[in-house]
Amino acid sequence: MAKKYTTKHEVAYYECDINQTMTFPSMLGVAVKTSEEQSDKLGRGSDFVASFGLTWVITNYQMTITRLPKVGEIVDVTTQALEYNKYFCYRNFWFHDQDGNELVLIESVFVLMDLENRKMSSVVEEIITPYESEKIKKIKRAPKIEKIAQGEVVPYRVRFYDIDSNQHVNNAIYFNWMIDVLGYEFLTTHEPIDVNIRFDKEVEYGSMIDSHYEILELETHVETRHEIKIGDLLCCEAAIQWKKK
Amino acid sequence: MAKKYTTKHEVAYYECDINQTMTFPSMLGVAVKTSEEQSDKLGRGSDFVASFGLTWVITNYQMTITRLPKVGEIVDVTTQALEYNKYFCYRNFWFHDQDGNELVLIESVFVLMDLENRKMSSVVEEIITPYESEKIKKIKRAPKIEKIAQGEVVPYRVRFYDIDSNQHVNNAIYFNWMIDVLGYEFLTTHEPIDVNIRFDKEVEYGSMIDSHYEILELETHVETRHEIKIGDLLCCEAAIQWKKK
Repeated sequence: MAKKYTTKHEVAYYECDINQTMTFPSMLGVAVKTSEEQSDKLGRGSDFVASFGLTWVITNYQMTITRLPKVGEIVDVTTQALEYNKYFCYRNFWFHDQDGNELVLIESVFVLMDLENRKMSSVVEEIITPYESEKIKKIKRAPKIEKIAQGEVVPYRVRFYDIDSNQHVNNAIYFNWMIDVLGYEFLTTHEPIDVNIRFDKEVEYGSMIDSHYEILELETHVETRHEIKIGDLLCCEAAIQWKKK
Repeated sequence: MAKKYTTKHEVAYYECDINQTMTFPSMLGVAVKTSEEQSDKLGRGSDFVASFGLTWVITNYQMTITRLPKVGEIVDVTTQALEYNKYFCYRNFWFHDQDGNELVLIESVFVLMDLENRKMSSVVEEIITPYESEKIKKIKRAPKIEKIAQGEVVPYRVRFYDIDSNQHVNNAIYFNWMIDVLGYEFLTTHEPIDVNIRFDKEVEYGSMIDSHYEILELETHVETRHEIKIGDLLCCEAAIQWKKK
């Protein structure tokens, strides 16, 4: 059974939007920080990984949202590097309230990337042994993200604060562009219940990206589909399920 | 002597930019959160203030930066509501490292604003008594912010995540627009040492703002001047002093 690691986090006002609940970038920031803390504790921090010429990159998130964390609330953030195969590591994150109720589950896929040529590397046993993840044969596939049929588009410029220390846009920032296009009216009358996002290409500082989107009114709920592109190049795609408030 | 309140804060990677040091929005977020915690402890949280039909608004920051907090560093964040007169409350914030060295001093001016008509109110004794601030006659003036003589301009649209619960742009967000225009080359070769910023008009969701700026090479250091405008309307102005790395 892979090791679990839990930290407590108090939700700050600046991590929340006008709905008084945590934004996607804030949730992902806190989640990833928790996994970094676990890695540091196990002697497998970014310096250790870099000593192999490698770095961790996240390629997918699947989020199941029961209730978004609220401003001022204290949540338990738990992470567990469950399983891995030759190329992919599967890590879960959970947000729980102080009564132990699950608020958010985030399933993620991590890969090791070569710092020089930025290509995917196979998993290095020495890096991942201490997490006690289960070795599996199977490659788990995230649910398919349907393409946009009839969408609209808003352009965005990558800003200085959007990039992180590797000079690429931090994964969490894609949500700024995807969420913003939905507009005030939509975002104050709908709550996300499920997110499926895949990161295909890294975006660099100075790029102009296009945030394509489509809003589909389904029988039981609303689905929004998203594609972040640089010209014709697909950098990120996502599907978000929403319920009406 | 006014009461001091201190919390510890561990600097997260998502609070830092490519220089591995805290961004202005992150520092201000953490600082303001500390003052909110103090207010809650003293029974003077936002609900209590709202019961008078009022809310706190920050009109100025003066920052003196010895060294920016670094990623992973634990800092002590201290706040003290030093003094007040009929309209203005003067509150300081300090960031200290774990050896007690001052990293950043932030002097700020708070005013009470009427929630209905969004006009300034005189200070209500019942709200501020527990802080034990000193009552003064004098109105303290921040150093003058010189106008831009020959500047350049970049437009920005206010995004959904830029607004806070009162539907206006959070003060800290102005820094995104002011910093971003300086560009990658400047921002990775200069460190801020002093900031003087004044908030004149609130910016609402959906607005397009212009971020005007000018870079002045002085004998001892570099000064950047900033004006955030909607058309001809000045919303925010700032002067930042920088040293070369």
